[in-house]
Amino acid sequence: MTPNQVIQRKRDGGVHTDEEIAFLIRGFMSSQVTDYHMSAWLMAVYINGMTPRETLALTREMRDSGDLLDLSSIPGKKVDKHSTGGVGDKTSMIVAPIAAACGVTVPMITGRALGHTGGTLDKLESIPGFNPLPSAEKAAAILKRAGAVIMGQTDDLAPADRRIYALRDVTGTVESIPLITASILGKKLAEKTDGLVIDVKAGSGAFMPTMKRSRELARSIVDVCRAMKTRIVVVITDMEQPLGCAIGNALEIRECIDFLNGKTPEDLETVSLALAAHMIRLGGRAKTMDQASRLVYEAVSKGKAADRFRQIIREQDGDERVMDNPDLLPKAAHIQEFHARSRGFVTRCDAKLLGLASNALGAGRNKIEDVIDPAVGLYLKKKLGDRVTRGETLCDIHWNDEKRLRDAVPLIEKAFEVKIRPVGRRPLIHAVLEG
Amino acid sequence: MTPNQVIQRKRDGGVHTDEEIAFLIRGFMSSQVTDYHMSAWLMAVYINGMTPRETLALTREMRDSGDLLDLSSIPGKKVDKHSTGGVGDKTSMIVAPIAAACGVTVPMITGRALGHTGGTLDKLESIPGFNPLPSAEKAAAILKRAGAVIMGQTDDLAPADRRIYALRDVTGTVESIPLITASILGKKLAEKTDGLVIDVKAGSGAFMPTMKRSRELARSIVDVCRAMKTRIVVVITDMEQPLGCAIGNALEIRECIDFLNGKTPEDLETVSLALAAHMIRLGGRAKTMDQASRLVYEAVSKGKAADRFRQIIREQDGDERVMDNPDLLPKAAHIQEFHARSRGFVTRCDAKLLGLASNALGAGRNKIEDVIDPAVGLYLKKKLGDRVTRGETLCDIHWNDEKRLRDAVPLIEKAFEVKIRPVGRRPLIHAVLEG
Repeated sequence: MTPNQVIQRKRDGGVHTDEEIAFLIRGFMSSQVTDYHMSAWLMAVYINGMTPRETLALTREMRDSGDLLDLSSIPGKKVDKHSTGGVGDKTSMIVAPIAAACGVTVPMITGRALGHTGGTLDKLESIPGFNPLPSAEKAAAILKRAGAVIMGQTDDLAPADRRIYALRDVTGTVESIPLITASILGKKLAEKTDGLVIDVKAGSGAFMPTMKRSRELARSIVDVCRAMKTRIVVVITDMEQPLGCAIGNALEIRECIDFLNGKTPEDLETVSLALAAHMIRLGGRAKTMDQASRLVYEAVSKGKAADRFRQIIREQDGDERVMDNPDLLPKAAHIQEFHARSRGFVTRCDAKLLGLASNALGAGRNKIEDVIDPAVGLYLKKKLGDRVTRGETLCDIHWNDEKRLRDAVPLIEKAFEVKIRPVGRRPLIHAVLEG
Repeated sequence: MTPNQVIQRKRDGGVHTDEEIAFLIRGFMSSQVTDYHMSAWLMAVYINGMTPRETLALTREMRDSGDLLDLSSIPGKKVDKHSTGGVGDKTSMIVAPIAAACGVTVPMITGRALGHTGGTLDKLESIPGFNPLPSAEKAAAILKRAGAVIMGQTDDLAPADRRIYALRDVTGTVESIPLITASILGKKLAEKTDGLVIDVKAGSGAFMPTMKRSRELARSIVDVCRAMKTRIVVVITDMEQPLGCAIGNALEIRECIDFLNGKTPEDLETVSLALAAHMIRLGGRAKTMDQASRLVYEAVSKGKAADRFRQIIREQDGDERVMDNPDLLPKAAHIQEFHARSRGFVTRCDAKLLGLASNALGAGRNKIEDVIDPAVGLYLKKKLGDRVTRGETLCDIHWNDEKRLRDAVPLIEKAFEVKIRPVGRRPLIHAVLEG
């Protein structure tokens, strides 16, 4: 078997054996398969696709390219949640403390900002002192005491995925359903949890903009998890407009704290509570979604979830006083209002453009070496379907650098549209698949 | 513009601008576009194709990636011939002296063995002393005196093609019509000849096995040459079985010498004379194919073509005595007959398998660093449609190494088929296109 032969099979629309996929991925890790072999193969997969069985074999090779997490010393069922990436999506920092407060163990491994989407690790780092990379021993200890840890991926977890993702990112092979499936699940299955909740985003701000493609990705994820005997719920949620009101690192942490303290935008609440309830059900703490939802409401309303978030912050060396005084989070030097130019209803509040605008202000990275400004971002005052008068504020722009402000404003202008007649509202949760 | 954006356009079946193609090829030569970018793009081109205009732009970039040959000091019209590669195809060493004897200047730049096909340079090197890489000054002097030179490609001629071909060879992206077109013509147009004759092979031993694909390639070559204002004739010739009887380096040189001395297999004669006549017509030495064919017959029958080949060998430091005494060429230590197991007619004499068998004996390379054995190969005693009795010799195997002989015999067994009823003969020349 040579890399060339394996590439040719996929080029011609053929189906790989498990051995061929193992040969490619293991060869890539041992440098017998080069970057140029891999990128030719990735393009052939992008265009010609893979069968569920091939996707399963690829996922297994990704998972087995590194160490598996050993959480056997920690009692209780472990459940993780993962999102395919969105704008204003801060649910991880809400659902992890809620599920932990309800008795589920949540070893949450998460990532950095990517393209126009934000990253949970970057957001958490806006909390003074917060350590997103505790050692394995420390992470296990935190998990035992607090029931949840939110941390970055170590080098030993699914290293094949990290190397292959770096290639996909620069060779136009990101938006492929089998490759996304194997990338997400290769990492998540290496955590050896009892259950997974995956939030697949659909809409302008999602990597898979159409509903059809989001459904295909959800189906692919469920199929692989079923074959790998891991309980899975995939929730397809809306990302046509940002989730919640805050976009940007410290602004989003503040919105999470507000949420856990009982003050929340409706869309963020709907999505977060659904995800948390699925986690609690998969974690064996409730039999039905009704039961699970009741536990979730109780955990939030009685402050148990807020207490857990405070504990997670403290255990990960962050300044827990932000829970009582969010003004301790980094704040931008300037806040400028962005006004509606006409009256009517908001008919567009484009997630991708607002994500790019927040990045332009400094909240994200264009190159790996860029340094994030934790304070900047946007705070939406109006969202899809809201009525506005002429001159009313659509969003607040939190900015530090005037040049960056000038880059961001045209994106915000394009993101919003106000018309006399309102458009129909999109559902927040499009579908739930379970395997 | 980024490599990623250009790759994505072709991935999605889009059409490149000339600027995008220039960006990719020039970027590749200046290392801003990496091997992994290029191989992802090549795969996207392989699967999604290119328009004639894109193929033209790519050809132009290939040509302009290095120096152009300056033959302006040499009087007369220059014409080159190129083949897409076959088994037993030794026409280059026949048509170059014929065309030169008829007053056409032939600056022939040629290559090495590739896969199951032979290489003109390797064949010529079986002549003791022959120098396939004269300096530019020496090549020009030879061209002036002998009217033809047959030499390898210098590093300065279309270097982008050499680097891209090396990638295609290992990433399953060889058999793409736009990529083949740009590869052949990028080099050939850098020679700045007045005319080109391209022999596109069709059949089992060709890189394009089906007639449909061979016709597409021919059409693509004609379209680009027309746009580049270079006179072109494409002849689609048969490569279902080997051309002539000899396969292997010294054996093929011997067959060329026999041909020029008046002894020749019919198929080799038909194809060689047609190619030579087209060269003479494009070189302005005849107005019609009838006139050109008469000149060709005269050049061969009066010994003028043989004299030219002798002169080319001498000018390129080879031992010209091989023309009178071919036994001076390397000879294998052993000749073994391969016999028919039943009587009837030869219904298969597979070019690819016989090419692979000759390679297995040592006539070709599996790796770049392999050393060729010039003496070994096959000599066909029977070809498609010939009647055979049981036990009669189908071919002679010229061999030096017993282990290699054992590898070659099963391939020869698979290559031949003898049945009671004969199959219809294939035409030798399937089509001629002119632009």
